[in-house]
Amino acid sequence: MTTLSVDGRRYEVARATESDVAALVALLADDVLGAQRESADLAPYLAAFGEIDRDPNQLLLAVRDEGGDVVGTMQLTLIPGLARGGTKRLQVEGVRLAPSTRGSGLGTALFDWAHEYGRRHGATLAQLTSDKTRADAHRFYERLGYEASHEGLKRPL
Amino acid sequence: MTTLSVDGRRYEVARATESDVAALVALLADDVLGAQRESADLAPYLAAFGEIDRDPNQLLLAVRDEGGDVVGTMQLTLIPGLARGGTKRLQVEGVRLAPSTRGSGLGTALFDWAHEYGRRHGATLAQLTSDKTRADAHRFYERLGYEASHEGLKRPL
Repeated sequence: MTTLSVDGRRYEVARATESDVAALVALLADDVLGAQRESADLAPYLAAFGEIDRDPNQLLLAVRDEGGDVVGTMQLTLIPGLARGGTKRLQVEGVRLAPSTRGSGLGTALFDWAHEYGRRHGATLAQLTSDKTRADAHRFYERLGYEASHEGLKRPL
Repeated sequence: MTTLSVDGRRYEVARATESDVAALVALLADDVLGAQRESADLAPYLAAFGEIDRDPNQLLLAVRDEGGDVVGTMQLTLIPGLARGGTKRLQVEGVRLAPSTRGSGLGTALFDWAHEYGRRHGATLAQLTSDKTRADAHRFYERLGYEASHEGLKRPL
């Protein structure tokens, strides 16, 4: 558990627990793209949470405001690899911040924390993909030092 | 171990072992971008191999031709997640095929195998990033059904 102090407000960052899943799913669904992708049935999310929680290379975060409401989430994955001199990657997925926190600096503080977590675990490269329609997100990531050097390609299986 | 039959040639696909590491690094370095990124010192690669090999969600592949030479590699990572209804992702990293195999259909056969591996382990989405300068690779991935829907953002840590 870490406390982030951002512009006079305090947020608690912690490893998510099973009891956070419903709030995390609500956050994922409260989004222009997520609204079409998430479902009301919690069962598949609870199964996925179990798999995330058992994998020591996964860290799912729940961020709470001073009132105890879940206002942010991200999933961090450590990926060892041979390429680039045996570089370990920190991959960031499933980033969501509640609309109430936008512009507060919480996103920047949370990414700073995530990057430090990656370095502490031996990662020397951070990576994420972001839907090409999310222009605001890309400006945010570029301010954080990310470069859109790659195409992010996906296909259903 | 799987045998892929491609256009009259046979290739053996197997989980990489420590004794494959030097050949895999040579393959990573035999590439316009990889040539600048890989080093002659095997030690960091062997350390990275150990981490990959211990993680049950990682599968590093070595592909051999009929003469026993390593002519291909890719790394598959299974990533459980909450987003998209609890979707598990198959992430593909570090894809390299020897120039001698280009145009043979080996790449397509290897990706077909990888997608089936993902489905067998519960993944319903495959994803990868590819440097924006690799125009040939993007045409290949689009033929395989991938869509360049996302920006692939990276930054050093």
